[in-house]
Amino acid sequence: MSGALGFDLPAWSAARLSAVEAALDRWVPAHAPAGVGEAMRYAVLDGGKRLRALLVFAAAEAVGATDGAAALRAACAVELIHGYSLVHDDMPCMDNDVLRRGKPTVHVRFGEAMALLAGDAMQALAFELLTPGPDEDRVAPPTQAALCAQLARAAGYAGMAGGQAIDLASVGLALDENQLRTMHRLKTGALLQASVRMGAACGACGGPALAALSDYGAAIGLAFQVVDDILDVTADSATLGKTAGKDALNDKPTYVSLMGLEAARAHARELQDDALAALANSGLADTVALAALARMVVERSN
Amino acid sequence: MSGALGFDLPAWSAARLSAVEAALDRWVPAHAPAGVGEAMRYAVLDGGKRLRALLVFAAAEAVGATDGAAALRAACAVELIHGYSLVHDDMPCMDNDVLRRGKPTVHVRFGEAMALLAGDAMQALAFELLTPGPDEDRVAPPTQAALCAQLARAAGYAGMAGGQAIDLASVGLALDENQLRTMHRLKTGALLQASVRMGAACGACGGPALAALSDYGAAIGLAFQVVDDILDVTADSATLGKTAGKDALNDKPTYVSLMGLEAARAHARELQDDALAALANSGLADTVALAALARMVVERSN
Repeated sequence: MSGALGFDLPAWSAARLSAVEAALDRWVPAHAPAGVGEAMRYAVLDGGKRLRALLVFAAAEAVGATDGAAALRAACAVELIHGYSLVHDDMPCMDNDVLRRGKPTVHVRFGEAMALLAGDAMQALAFELLTPGPDEDRVAPPTQAALCAQLARAAGYAGMAGGQAIDLASVGLALDENQLRTMHRLKTGALLQASVRMGAACGACGGPALAALSDYGAAIGLAFQVVDDILDVTADSATLGKTAGKDALNDKPTYVSLMGLEAARAHARELQDDALAALANSGLADTVALAALARMVVERSN
Repeated sequence: MSGALGFDLPAWSAARLSAVEAALDRWVPAHAPAGVGEAMRYAVLDGGKRLRALLVFAAAEAVGATDGAAALRAACAVELIHGYSLVHDDMPCMDNDVLRRGKPTVHVRFGEAMALLAGDAMQALAFELLTPGPDEDRVAPPTQAALCAQLARAAGYAGMAGGQAIDLASVGLALDENQLRTMHRLKTGALLQASVRMGAACGACGGPALAALSDYGAAIGLAFQVVDDILDVTADSATLGKTAGKDALNDKPTYVSLMGLEAARAHARELQDDALAALANSGLADTVALAALARMVVERSN
């Protein structure tokens, strides 16, 4: 990890994010029927920190991936899955939230039915981007299959959707730390970890290195949620770009409600250390971007 | 198409459907977190005519596919996509229907939030089934990629989800036949056609044969919808297993409202002829099952 001190994360991120924004602008179709494209674009363009996309690029670079088309498509695909999950999660039958990334949520802007459909179409588009046709980018078919395999498992019942179901069932319950960890490992951790593993799938990555990257992904996935819980009580809505304080309002179990603010902060730092240790054990030469992202996850203010 | 007269569609179907039901029972997880598996199983097991699954098998057999694992996985995947679309389509913000396949709809049985999540997880599971890991069935990675590519496009904005958006936007409007055809080509036709093309992708299928199978799929996809519109006015809810007469109730444009009952029936027969002509032009030796399915689509009573 030599060079980490001199690594310029904002500059590194900006270059990759401009590619992601341009690609999403190109691939999320304005012309899709009856306004569904407009709703999809509203949901996914110009949105968020793009942590998942950055993890794809950082992991791809760590394993020396040379196939830039695959990494760009994987980065857009994980952002589409993340974006659709927010659209559905904000709907009245779920969290019933009206503010997201500082804008009215999709169902507020376009109606519930369109939010439902746009989310559904975003999930399908993620897999479409991972499987370009012969007249599109060249991505080797085994890489396409590996990327779809990772994404499907992270998005589905054993990942994000399963975690959402636990979240739904746990409102008002007193979860212990194990139960809380299981929920978050699925709800947010699975897709963050998959972003790392999908980046690795864009290059050649041996078993031990992949296992280390998976450990890294698991640690930052959990750290991300711990910090989210901290920010929900310490930040205001304007800084977050979403409604602050809603966990307590919704009587949802969080790391802060479980262990208190200071212990939650200490836990986030431990997880950051775990992530950095996994990178040190990976045997990979260039993990500066992954290391910088781990720090960013824990030290972020929104 | 020699042997068509002696072809026993019920027996042919029964053998394949028992494999599909057993596979779905194995792959749609009872153990998934917090009840989402139960809702997924409720939505997709023991359900419907399985026309899409049968089209996968019939097309796979027409092209001499020897990889049975791929066809079975593709058959389950298209049923999962179809099933999830029904779950979401029945929700209060969409069609608000309470009866499906003779049972309460998923949101009536499990609540809206769980219906939303179960549908989302079913879409992800479809792509998971198409990309088995090395410890699961052996399906060649290029076949996996081809199947994901077809399914993603058929399910997304340029297929099913786009068609739903048009449907949503067209309530109360007087569509002409072109507009109605576009809506149905996307809403139901794309997945039916993809079922045929995915079956073909399980074997070796040259360009002209694939084009003929695509024409077949387009014709029966449209025929299916025309017949659906006819049955909505001529059958009762008990026979259909869903609420009859709801198109008129919802002021939705249909082939019957556009062209009248007799002309709609004639149009369905024309489309059946188109489908059979495409098979005759395909150059494929064994299309008896596809031909029998085309007849079943037009002559069905539910």
